[in-house]
Amino acid sequence: MRIAIVGGTGGLGYGLAVRLAAAGQDAVIGSRSADRAHAAAERVKALLGPKLLGSVEGGANAEVVKDATVVMVTVPFPGQADTYKAIKSSFGPNATVIDCTVPLASEVGGRPTRMLGVWEGSAAQQARSIVGREVKLASGFHTIMAGTLEATDISLDQDVLICGDPEARKVAAEIVGFLAGARCVDCGGLETARILESMTALLIGINGRYKLHPGAGIRITGLLT
Amino acid sequence: MRIAIVGGTGGLGYGLAVRLAAAGQDAVIGSRSADRAHAAAERVKALLGPKLLGSVEGGANAEVVKDATVVMVTVPFPGQADTYKAIKSSFGPNATVIDCTVPLASEVGGRPTRMLGVWEGSAAQQARSIVGREVKLASGFHTIMAGTLEATDISLDQDVLICGDPEARKVAAEIVGFLAGARCVDCGGLETARILESMTALLIGINGRYKLHPGAGIRITGLLT
Repeated sequence: MRIAIVGGTGGLGYGLAVRLAAAGQDAVIGSRSADRAHAAAERVKALLGPKLLGSVEGGANAEVVKDATVVMVTVPFPGQADTYKAIKSSFGPNATVIDCTVPLASEVGGRPTRMLGVWEGSAAQQARSIVGREVKLASGFHTIMAGTLEATDISLDQDVLICGDPEARKVAAEIVGFLAGARCVDCGGLETARILESMTALLIGINGRYKLHPGAGIRITGLLT
Repeated sequence: MRIAIVGGTGGLGYGLAVRLAAAGQDAVIGSRSADRAHAAAERVKALLGPKLLGSVEGGANAEVVKDATVVMVTVPFPGQADTYKAIKSSFGPNATVIDCTVPLASEVGGRPTRMLGVWEGSAAQQARSIVGREVKLASGFHTIMAGTLEATDISLDQDVLICGDPEARKVAAEIVGFLAGARCVDCGGLETARILESMTALLIGINGRYKLHPGAGIRITGLLT
C-alpha cells in the first residue's frame, strides 16, 4: 500500500510514517517544503535502520498524493483548509483520504484541552466540504499520541476510533492493522468526527494531570473482537 | 454514605442504586412521584435479596436530597433544568452534587448517536448555572450503560470519567470505588463535561453497530494506577 502522509513532518504524521514503513508499507512523507519532507524521510530511515521493512520517501504535498492509494492528512488545523484546496485536484480516482486533523484551541493561542468550534461540526466535515462527496473520506487516529508511534518496540495497547464513508472506514481499518497492538473500532459516519476529535483534548488533559509520557490512549471495553 | 439518586427510577439511576446498596451504602431513590420511588426501592431490595449490604429507600426528589451526603442527578435532559430548580433549595450545606445528564438528541425526537447543543457548553454546566458556584458540583458516569450496573455479579471492566470542582471530583471518585471493576479517571474541570457527555452518544453508536449487550465502556490506557 502506498500511503501519502500530508503534513508528515509533524509529530503524528512522522510517527505514522515510522510505524507504516516498519510494517512493510510504502510511506511517503509530504510537506509544503519538499526539502523538509526529504529530510524527515531520511530521519525515518536512520531511526529504523534494519527495521525498515517497507520504504519511506518525501516530497511536496501535492506531489506525494498523486499516486497514493491512501492519503492521510495530519496537518495543524489552521492550515487544514488551504492544504485540502492545494492537494484535492491531485488525488487519484480511487484514493481514500483519512483526515486526522484536530481543531485544538491551542492552535490559535488557547488551551490544548479545549476545542475550536468548526462550522461544519468537525475538521473532518470541513474537509468533506472542500473535497466533495466523490472522494472516499474517513476520520481517525486522533487519540494516538505521537510519541507512542515512534517507539516501534512498544505495542500501542489502544484502540483507533474511525468514522466516515463505509469504504473509507475499511481502508482505515487496514491501516490500523499495520500498527502493532492497535485495534480498529468502527464509529459510524463522518458526523461522529466531532466526538472523536474532541477526545484528543480529553487525553491531553489526562496526560497533563497524570504526568504521562508518551501518553494515554483509549480502549473500548465490551467488544468481542 | 447517604446517596440520593434524583431520577433514580430511570435506567442509570436505578442501576446505580442497585450497585451502591449492594456495596453497603445507603441509596435513596428520588422521583417526581414518591410512590414510584418507593416501588423502585422495593424492586432493588427484591433484586438484591441477601446481597443488600447497605440500604435502599425511596421518596420525592426534593425530600430525598435533604439529608444526602451526595446527590446524583440522573434525569432525562429535557427535565434537567426544572429538576435542579425544584431541588436546589433542599441541598444540605455540605452536599456534593454529581450530574449524570446527557443531552442526547433522542430526547427530542432525534438520534441517540447525536447530541443537542447546550448554550452553557454541556448539561453539567447548565446545572452549574442553576445551582450556582457555592454547590460542589461534578459530572460523570456518562459511559456506564445501565444494563451493566444491574448485573452485580459482573465486574464493570471500565473507567468512569469524572470532571468538575476538585472537592466534588474526590467525592465522585469515592462513589466509583463502590462499583466493582470500575476505575475513576480525573478529567479536570467542569468544562470537560461536554466531551464526557458526548461519549455516551459514541458508545450508543458502537453498541448498535457491534450489537453489544449490555454495552461498551471506556478504558483509558497508559495510566499507571
